[in-house]
Order: sequence, then structure tokens, then C-alpha cells
Amino acid sequence: MKTVLIIGGYGFLGMNIIKYIEDYLMQEYKVIVFDKFPDNRSGLTLKCVEKSYSGDFADSQFVDRMFSENTIDLVIHSLSTTVPSQSFNARYDVESNLVPTIELLNCMERHQVKDIVYISSGGAIYGDTSEKKHKEVEDVFPISSYGVVKLAIEKYLMQYAELFGFRPLIIRLSNPYGAYHYSRQQGVINVALDAALLGEPFTVWGNGNAKKDYIYVQDFVAILFMLLEKGVCKEVINVGSGKQYSVDELLAKIKELVPSFSWEYREASRYDVLNFQLDTEKLRKIIGEYNFVGIDDGLRKTFDWIKQLGHK
Amino acid sequence: MKTVLIIGGYGFLGMNIIKYIEDYLMQEYKVIVFDKFPDNRSGLTLKCVEKSYSGDFADSQFVDRMFSENTIDLVIHSLSTTVPSQSFNARYDVESNLVPTIELLNCMERHQVKDIVYISSGGAIYGDTSEKKHKEVEDVFPISSYGVVKLAIEKYLMQYAELFGFRPLIIRLSNPYGAYHYSRQQGVINVALDAALLGEPFTVWGNGNAKKDYIYVQDFVAILFMLLEKGVCKEVINVGSGKQYSVDELLAKIKELVPSFSWEYREASRYDVLNFQLDTEKLRKIIGEYNFVGIDDGLRKTFDWIKQLGHK
Repeated sequence: MKTVLIIGGYGFLGMNIIKYIEDYLMQEYKVIVFDKFPDNRSGLTLKCVEKSYSGDFADSQFVDRMFSENTIDLVIHSLSTTVPSQSFNARYDVESNLVPTIELLNCMERHQVKDIVYISSGGAIYGDTSEKKHKEVEDVFPISSYGVVKLAIEKYLMQYAELFGFRPLIIRLSNPYGAYHYSRQQGVINVALDAALLGEPFTVWGNGNAKKDYIYVQDFVAILFMLLEKGVCKEVINVGSGKQYSVDELLAKIKELVPSFSWEYREASRYDVLNFQLDTEKLRKIIGEYNFVGIDDGLRKTFDWIKQLGHK
Repeated sequence: MKTVLIIGGYGFLGMNIIKYIEDYLMQEYKVIVFDKFPDNRSGLTLKCVEKSYSGDFADSQFVDRMFSENTIDLVIHSLSTTVPSQSFNARYDVESNLVPTIELLNCMERHQVKDIVYISSGGAIYGDTSEKKHKEVEDVFPISSYGVVKLAIEKYLMQYAELFGFRPLIIRLSNPYGAYHYSRQQGVINVALDAALLGEPFTVWGNGNAKKDYIYVQDFVAILFMLLEKGVCKEVINVGSGKQYSVDELLAKIKELVPSFSWEYREASRYDVLNFQLDTEKLRKIIGEYNFVGIDDGLRKTFDWIKQLGHK
């Protein structure tokens, strides 16, 4: 039985990780949640969650207290205080994400906790290039401050591995979509499905032709636990479905679900990555064949989740 | 006539840049110095220096005042508050180097100053690998926090280029040695020559076999101005002599200059890069053939400079 501390546990990815543990891994993991919110927004009772801490990630004494009060085996860090498309405030990104993450690592070192999963971002790290599938070993050119900070965190994690024996698993995730997604700031599929259901027109940033890799969030979580199961660490791994869709293709599919759905185009923010493909060869070599949820199936499941929220 | 603000102007590299302007480029540049020290330590009168500001780099209002009081055309940023071999304090590196550099860039943007040279570090960025010569396009694994911060600054500079039209020239410098070097914390050649002259035993960190690229500081400065002259920007460029020497080879050469010179070996700090070669193909393609000062000549010149300091 391992105790996992999930930083940002009531966010989109965190909740999906918890739900997966609740459904499949109750014998293996108990969960401690750190989040700015005191409760999960789904209304679900989650038996695997032993304790929830609600606080400020930048409060390093608070973070330290969680490690003092619990014997933590593994940290999953999926918290970010910013999203790429916010207005450019590099200093805030550094002070609210990078510095608290360094303090988290120092805290782990003090408490001799060496295992950490960091959810990085493929799109934010690699930058905006349509032509090629990005590999983990290449030089990268993030176009947002959010991306530079994620890169710096990755490099610190690899350094803590060298210097202090940390075992970080760094996941460069493509664009996840699915249940327990509450943000209206990012995640085109969820936000568009939400708008479709509410009968609101959806705003497309950019011309709709740009293609990105999308992954159904449950696939991400299943893969995460496959990687943990195999003990993969000190590695940066691209995790995506390997399938790209343009925004226009996605919207056409949503219109099949909700015929009244409409949208309009606006100029993209210059911090938004428009085109982006991940090379997932390294992942495939580690986990072998994996049967990803197809886009139509994923859209339908996500739509079903949004409908049960009952906001229409 | 251009006004150049040199951040860290009275440090080793800054002073060599100023001396070069003083000797060769008085018609082209006037200099404004920012440094924590109010004066240069050489005792030289520097006519090209119009103004010196002494202050704290983290004081962003102070930095802004320099831009308000002067019409600055070019910034050369060669300041670091830390050295790689200091004890590991990532938070301090981030807060005292990365954050103030972000504020410097924001200040430049407010004042519409777009040209900046950033002196990055080949050794600190690429990490510790003896086998290959590092190219600018590869993924990097800094082994010190100092290196991660330099990498993050590089990435921000490229981002400010994309987003705000900055024209950054990023130099990944090998190991410079020569005149106006006052540190006893880094720079093996200068520190060893100093010890030789003082009759003190020199401490070698590591076994002495590790090889690094060394560059005579005047070569670095001459190359810097060649790159500026050519208008090279939005580029990361390795600058080194392309010649590697082991510490033992250097010490043997110094013993020829000072027969009484002696040294002892100690275990290296784990933040020190021991082996490191730069691929300087990109530089050579830009500047063509360049006749570097040879190591024997460079050592002799450096020794002459140290002798005239008169501390023996």
C-alpha cells in the first residue's frame, strides 16, 4: 500500500487520477490531496482519499506540514497556477510555479521522498511547429512563459535525480479531454462541448485548420499507472494518442452530436500553440500496443459526462 | 554612436568588454555600467564609461531608472549572483538571477530597447559529458541550478524575440581566462596563476585529467564585437577556442612559468562540470577563420597581468 500525494488533486488531471485509483487501485494506493479547493467539485465520495489539504502551493511551510503529518511514498505534481494563454507575466509564472516546485523538491529531499511524477506539457514545451513530430531528445522552444517554467522544472527534476537520487517520471502530455474538466480557459474539446450544450456560440482562436494531438484523459491515467507499474523513472516521455485533429474537424464532430452548435473564429493569442504533433515512439516501446479511445467515442463519453452535470 | 549598458560591467567579462571599447571602439560606443561595485577594481581611468550605477540587480525600480535617465541602444548582460560550484540553492538562483533578468527584459520592453547580448555558459548549460562536442541545437542537461537558470533565461530571450521583437544574441561561452579576473571562486587558470605567484599550493577539484575548452578573454571580446558588427541575433552561439586542455596540462604549463608551483587534488564538487567540449562550427561559419591566442601565449599574458597587480 502506497500513499500518493497529488498536488492539484482536485483539478482535471488530478481528479481523473483519483477516480482511477478509486475504481481500480484501492488495494494499492491511498491518496492525499493538496489543492487550492477543499473539496472535489464532482460531488463524488472518494474512499481512496484519506486526507485533503487546501492551501497555497507557495506556502512552503504548509507543504512541509503535509510531509510531516503523513508518510508519503509518491508525489504526483499536476498543479499549475497559470495557463499558457493568459497574458504574459513571466515573473508571476516563475514565482507562483517554479519557486514553489523547487520548495516542494527540497521538502521531499528533507523527508526522503524520492518518487515524483511531473505532468509537463508537450504543446507548451515544444512550441509551435506543424511539420514534424516532436521527440523527447530535441532542443525545445516554448512560446509561452508557462512552457519555459515547465522546462525549467523538468531540468531541475533531472538534476535532483543526479544530485539527490530522485526518481522523477516526467510526462509531456498532449491535449487531454474528458470527465472532471471544469476550466473554461483551456481544453478546446471540453469547452466546445460545454458551449454546445448551453447553446452558446463557441470561439475558435485561430483559423481552425491547425492540428493537435488529443488524448482521452482516461487513456492518460491508464498509461501513467502502466509507467509507474514498470518503474519507469529519470525519463521524459511524450504521452499522446498519436492522432491529430484540426479544430474544424472536432467542431464538425460536435455538430453531429448537437446540430444547433455554432462557432466563430477570432485571432489566436500569440501564446497559444496552434499546431503540434508528438512523437510517441518512446512511449510505445515502453508500454507496447495500447488501444486508445477513438475520438468519436471519447467525444461521446465526454459529452455524456457534461450532460450529467445538469447545467442545462 | 551607440550607448551600451553593461550589466555586471565591473566583473571579469564586463571589464574586458569595456577595455576593448576603450582601446578600439571609442568612436562607436559609449558605456554605462551597472554593477554591485561602484568602481572598477583595476584602477584604470576608462574614458568610454559615461556613467556608473552601483546597485542591486533585484531592485527593478533602480534598473528602470537607468533606462529612464539614458537612451540605451544595447544591453550586455554578463551578471550572475552565483557560481556553479556554490552549494545548491535553486531558489536563490531563481530569485536573484532569473526573476531580475525577467524584470530587466520587461524594463527593456517598456523603454523599447530590443538589443541584448546574454553571456550564457557552455559548461553550465550542456552538462558533463566528455565524449562529444556539444552543438547549439541539442537538448541539454545542466548539472547545476546555475545552469538551469541560464537555460531558462535563454528560452525567455528567444520568447521575447518572438513576442516583442527583441534581438537577443546568446553566447554559450567556454572557460575564459585573462586580465581583470579577480574571483578566487572560479576560473582555474587565473586562480592557479594567482596561487603560483603567491607561493600557495593550488587545489585541483577532481583528478586533473578532465578536459575543457579554454578561451583567452580578449578573443571572446573580439568575437563578441565581430558578431555584433555582423548583426547576428536571435541566435545561440557557442564561443570557445575549440582547444581542450586537462587541468594537469595547464598546471604543468604554469609550473614552467613558476617552478615552485605546487598543487593537491581534492574530490570535485558535484555541481562542477569536469569534461566539456564545445562544437564551434556555427561560430566559425559566421566569423570565418579566426586566429585564437594560443594557450602558452595566453597563460604568459595572464601571468603578466597578475604580476603587475603587485600582490607579491
